[in-house]
Amino acid sequence: MMTLSARHLEKGNPITGPSLLEDVSLPAAVIFDAELANNIAWMQRFADGHGAQLAPHGKTTMTPALFRRQLDAGAWGVTLATATQCAVAFEHGATRLLMANQLVGAPNMAIVAGLIERGADYCCVVDSVANVEALDRFFGARDLTLNVLIELGVPGGRCGVRDESALAALVDAIAAAPAVALCGIEGYEGLIGGEHAVDRVRAYARQLVATLRRLMDAGAFADRKPIVTAAGSQWFDLIAEAFDQAELREHCTPVLRPGCYVVHDHRSYRDALAEVKARHPELEGNLQPALAVFAHVQSLPEPGLAVVAMGKRDISCDPDLPIPLQRHRPGEPAHPLRHCTVRKVMDQHTMLVIPEDADLRIGDIVSFGASHPCLTFDKWRQVLRVDDGLRVLETMPTFF
Amino acid sequence: MMTLSARHLEKGNPITGPSLLEDVSLPAAVIFDAELANNIAWMQRFADGHGAQLAPHGKTTMTPALFRRQLDAGAWGVTLATATQCAVAFEHGATRLLMANQLVGAPNMAIVAGLIERGADYCCVVDSVANVEALDRFFGARDLTLNVLIELGVPGGRCGVRDESALAALVDAIAAAPAVALCGIEGYEGLIGGEHAVDRVRAYARQLVATLRRLMDAGAFADRKPIVTAAGSQWFDLIAEAFDQAELREHCTPVLRPGCYVVHDHRSYRDALAEVKARHPELEGNLQPALAVFAHVQSLPEPGLAVVAMGKRDISCDPDLPIPLQRHRPGEPAHPLRHCTVRKVMDQHTMLVIPEDADLRIGDIVSFGASHPCLTFDKWRQVLRVDDGLRVLETMPTFF
Repeated sequence: MMTLSARHLEKGNPITGPSLLEDVSLPAAVIFDAELANNIAWMQRFADGHGAQLAPHGKTTMTPALFRRQLDAGAWGVTLATATQCAVAFEHGATRLLMANQLVGAPNMAIVAGLIERGADYCCVVDSVANVEALDRFFGARDLTLNVLIELGVPGGRCGVRDESALAALVDAIAAAPAVALCGIEGYEGLIGGEHAVDRVRAYARQLVATLRRLMDAGAFADRKPIVTAAGSQWFDLIAEAFDQAELREHCTPVLRPGCYVVHDHRSYRDALAEVKARHPELEGNLQPALAVFAHVQSLPEPGLAVVAMGKRDISCDPDLPIPLQRHRPGEPAHPLRHCTVRKVMDQHTMLVIPEDADLRIGDIVSFGASHPCLTFDKWRQVLRVDDGLRVLETMPTFF
Repeated sequence: MMTLSARHLEKGNPITGPSLLEDVSLPAAVIFDAELANNIAWMQRFADGHGAQLAPHGKTTMTPALFRRQLDAGAWGVTLATATQCAVAFEHGATRLLMANQLVGAPNMAIVAGLIERGADYCCVVDSVANVEALDRFFGARDLTLNVLIELGVPGGRCGVRDESALAALVDAIAAAPAVALCGIEGYEGLIGGEHAVDRVRAYARQLVATLRRLMDAGAFADRKPIVTAAGSQWFDLIAEAFDQAELREHCTPVLRPGCYVVHDHRSYRDALAEVKARHPELEGNLQPALAVFAHVQSLPEPGLAVVAMGKRDISCDPDLPIPLQRHRPGEPAHPLRHCTVRKVMDQHTMLVIPEDADLRIGDIVSFGASHPCLTFDKWRQVLRVDDGLRVLETMPTFF
């Protein structure tokens, strides 16, 4: 059988040269270089300014080339959600891995054991005695010690211990588990929303700090400078502030772990950042949307409708439908797509409602932004880093 | 840098052996072998029984190991949605490629030109003069002929010509394009729904046949046995019936191209099949749901809630949230998950509402079904074919 080049087999690859508009098989997912660099520097500066370490959540992008840039800019480690994600990050040179999730199942434990044996500085979170016991059995049998953080949850939330008695039982179980070492406290405030959310996030951050202090006083931690970590890309300022005010730095390691900030977005996190800036008018600079999907107009079948060759398999439709940004034609300046809205997205098609006098032709290229970058990244086996002139600088593989 | 095995870097891979419940990194996407074989045989028998060719839509799975099984069972070709999908199918041995979509953009045309030069029997659809002219320029410059089908659309639908004058202009444009050969008529009835949908699908099928006949009489086709093709996995019986009644076989090639049937599903297509069976009580056998995602219970943080280590990146939540199927423990028979429902799915977590007395433990494995398989397949780099005893028979790579 004849062999085609791998780039012919994967959507969004440069086929004939480096020009996004002329040489790349569209649809393609694109990251703008200047905005990316801005965002990485901005958040690192933010963490530094609050005396916190930054462990960007890698699950957002699962793009090791981006982990590298985040680490080179000063990140303390990489946060991940699963054992296989940790294996990807480690294989690509990230050695400090914060798995902000429970480690469950022998095959996943075997992956992590392999990472620890190879030198990874790994920790995961626990919220149940049953899980601690299973981890102790598995890692004890391999003469390994597993570092864990206790996860504090919120009622009606996701994982994490909900009350004092569950916390006490968990601390006791860890103390009784020779292969499990307690290294800190973890929380996730991203599920808090609705009325008084700001106050509730602040209260949750204070609870994390208070629990940390109490367990420190009780000598519960194996580590001399235990970790306290929280913060997605929505409320990171409130968490950083609480950690900062508690003056934790000397005796523990405060870690922020936002993920989506790295490419920001065109709606959800744009709005969240506006709130951060409103709370902190002194903050300089801005996160900038850096991720877009480029696709062709494939059909103009009736007045007011353009069908674009991009679908649910190419861009996030959750929590918002894609946002049309610009029309692109080789050799012409990009043109804003005013008064165009996405009506519906199917697996491989997008129905774009356009003004009847819109200057849009078959073969024109349209760029789209999205809300929440995580669910766009995972639709691609590579993303293209491009310069302002839409020349491809780097093809960055993803590992989902 | 130390190298980990590739299977440690991808979720859902066998790590320590072939047992799904004991050796595989969960979450994992699984295809049940017996149900898969049943479905492939069922639909081929259906097409044969109506004197139609079957070109299963490959975009559903993008799993060449499944294309191979469909072709070995008698499929005439493979349907695809994009140039890169066609390259994948061709690279894995499928030589007859029906791209039921417009071919737009020079890099995508270059991919297709490469396939044709290497011997692919390829056709795509057209619905605009502008596209025909662009294709003629591109393929003419390479001394190649591109086979096309005219797409007939429906008002308010997706792509496809909407009226007689657009059709006539398109036929003329193709006749004037030496590098473009008209080989048939294409339609997609899957967008038809709501009231009187059955009647409207039948009318649309008749329109396809009538247009084919008219263009045949006018000598518009380059091919002696032009193609007429439609049919997703919802209304395939109505399309097959219309093609059958028109007695097309002697002078043309009727092609059905359902995709989702191959693994069927647990809701949308289950319901659609019930309607097919109601219209055709004589049909023997059934399509059977063959795709599931297996994942661990990672947390039981409060009464009535289990958090499962599976998220939007692992299973389709569109058009329905995942459907809990069974609880699995190694060495015990699978246990149906009655009275459990999914409340919410996040990127990497599923909140499962459970009865307070449910026998569910941390580390238990839960299987889930989904509505509409396309949006589950594209979340995996491989799917595992398993037998009734949940032993992994084959790791089948996907190419999205």
